[in-house]
Amino acid sequence: MNKPKLLLLATGGTIASQPTEEGLAPGLDGEALTDMLPSAVLKRYEITVRDILRMDSSNIQPEEWQIIGRHVFASSREYDGIVITHGTDTMAYTASILSFMLQGISIPVVLTGSQLPIEHPLSDGQENLRLALAMAESGIGGVFVAFNRKIILGTRAVKTRTTGFDAFESVNWPYVAQASGGGLDCTPAALPPLRDEGCVLRDALSPRVFLMKLTPGVEPEIFDMLLQMHYRGIVIEAFGAGGLHFVRRDLVAKLQAAAAAGVSVVVCSQCLYEPSNFAVYEVGRRALEQGVIQGRDMTTEAAVTKLMWALGQTQDPEQVRRYFETSLAGEVTLE
Amino acid sequence: MNKPKLLLLATGGTIASQPTEEGLAPGLDGEALTDMLPSAVLKRYEITVRDILRMDSSNIQPEEWQIIGRHVFASSREYDGIVITHGTDTMAYTASILSFMLQGISIPVVLTGSQLPIEHPLSDGQENLRLALAMAESGIGGVFVAFNRKIILGTRAVKTRTTGFDAFESVNWPYVAQASGGGLDCTPAALPPLRDEGCVLRDALSPRVFLMKLTPGVEPEIFDMLLQMHYRGIVIEAFGAGGLHFVRRDLVAKLQAAAAAGVSVVVCSQCLYEPSNFAVYEVGRRALEQGVIQGRDMTTEAAVTKLMWALGQTQDPEQVRRYFETSLAGEVTLE
Repeated sequence: MNKPKLLLLATGGTIASQPTEEGLAPGLDGEALTDMLPSAVLKRYEITVRDILRMDSSNIQPEEWQIIGRHVFASSREYDGIVITHGTDTMAYTASILSFMLQGISIPVVLTGSQLPIEHPLSDGQENLRLALAMAESGIGGVFVAFNRKIILGTRAVKTRTTGFDAFESVNWPYVAQASGGGLDCTPAALPPLRDEGCVLRDALSPRVFLMKLTPGVEPEIFDMLLQMHYRGIVIEAFGAGGLHFVRRDLVAKLQAAAAAGVSVVVCSQCLYEPSNFAVYEVGRRALEQGVIQGRDMTTEAAVTKLMWALGQTQDPEQVRRYFETSLAGEVTLE
Repeated sequence: MNKPKLLLLATGGTIASQPTEEGLAPGLDGEALTDMLPSAVLKRYEITVRDILRMDSSNIQPEEWQIIGRHVFASSREYDGIVITHGTDTMAYTASILSFMLQGISIPVVLTGSQLPIEHPLSDGQENLRLALAMAESGIGGVFVAFNRKIILGTRAVKTRTTGFDAFESVNWPYVAQASGGGLDCTPAALPPLRDEGCVLRDALSPRVFLMKLTPGVEPEIFDMLLQMHYRGIVIEAFGAGGLHFVRRDLVAKLQAAAAAGVSVVVCSQCLYEPSNFAVYEVGRRALEQGVIQGRDMTTEAAVTKLMWALGQTQDPEQVRRYFETSLAGEVTLE
């Protein structure tokens, strides 16, 4: 029987980090990462290692997303699965944008990393890497995060803990799979939507999206500034189930100005869990009347990257809205 | 025996909301809220009701915080405890700022509200109001949130769920008390720091604080805009345990410009749980070298309101820094 052919794309991150004078920074290459795995595990696979970046993920930005996406797509016919080692800080953003760029991909694309460098005696890196390899040979198409014995759909991952090994949660969505005495126990209902049309790389995106997390009393004039700075999209993390202030400082009026300028505004909640719904309260309905797009139960990471992606596909705000009325990669629950 | 003398300050919120043509909006006054309590519960207390606002809490802003703070302080010698009914959307912000304005208050000041209007048959409003009254007669000084059978220190509350009754969590801090078969079970270690000097109302604050939640690729020029707009403080929700990008788009250089302009910058994490520490990774250390203030394990709600409060007390950035090196109301864990 042929061994599964897997590709490991190394990008840096804590998993590859070593102490330096300036603090921890990525030093190990992908080969050094696989050297930390037991040889019995390595023997199960035919692994090709490619070092494509060596960065702390706080520095990974849209340009790097495109580099990673192109590497994945270019190799997706040659391998049974692809593992990407990546810093945890922005892994949820990268997992989300890759999900949109690579819709319908037929092989597993699995991001992983660790909270402690893999060379540390207590590191979670080796275990996470073994989990990612196991998911990569599963044959399940899609983009996933493998962390702390759990597989999370790429568009549902959020980093919720700064240091704990249980760093990622699957927000408003069940875990895709969990490691247990039964092996990799999969939850079929949590898989991404199937796409018959196959995968075409769609890596155009607009980085001119601003995330605005509201605080009480924030001045509406910030929206004027964002329009002057030619932002094409704004994601608002509003209050609770869906509220923006309009007394004294009228944020709602600014939404109208943004819409008139052709800026797409997506509203979601600053609460981590559960869907927003701007139709329930007066403070939310006023926003809806200005033509904002509801984020529903999307994570902020998915909303921001989906908007960057949608604005890369089209200049037409109505088409952007239609993208948000569709679940492209399991990122949103529609009625 | 004298009954506990309690003051109920009603400000609106979902608990007081009723359906209107424009969606749910606050309609009930404080008297109508207490009318929803069993008469046997009401008989335990001598309750005075005062309607001070009738707002959705998405519209509660620094000016309202001052109104509420002044009402609490003015009545704090006449009552054994004060309950404030308040919308859930910004309750965590109000609880934090009141904690700073009313440091050392000797009576319980307890915010509560609900996820469903109190007139709804399934509402959590009555239960939360009973819990808040029980905490208000406890004699424990400080500002608290009472919700879903738990008492949370005011500076540690975060609204994490948009609709669930378990809407608030105590972040990086134990619950102060929980309702159980033992009554109100208190955790003494979770109480706010004792202050011998008594309580003086310190309600001056500067609303010119901007919350900047980073996304990958965010343009550094936003900081130029914030300086032009005369913001005096910026709270940055950085990546992971503490990272800001400096490759291609150099956010770190902008921190230097902000410091030079006398703007106080507080850095914390966009992860909900666990402390940030910018000294661990190179991507964080570079920020520390620019003189930013570490938020450590503070919630964003506490960091933003503490900065508004500190900038209301002093014009001196060094004094602002000293406030952040002290736990004023249990908001931060120092080494």
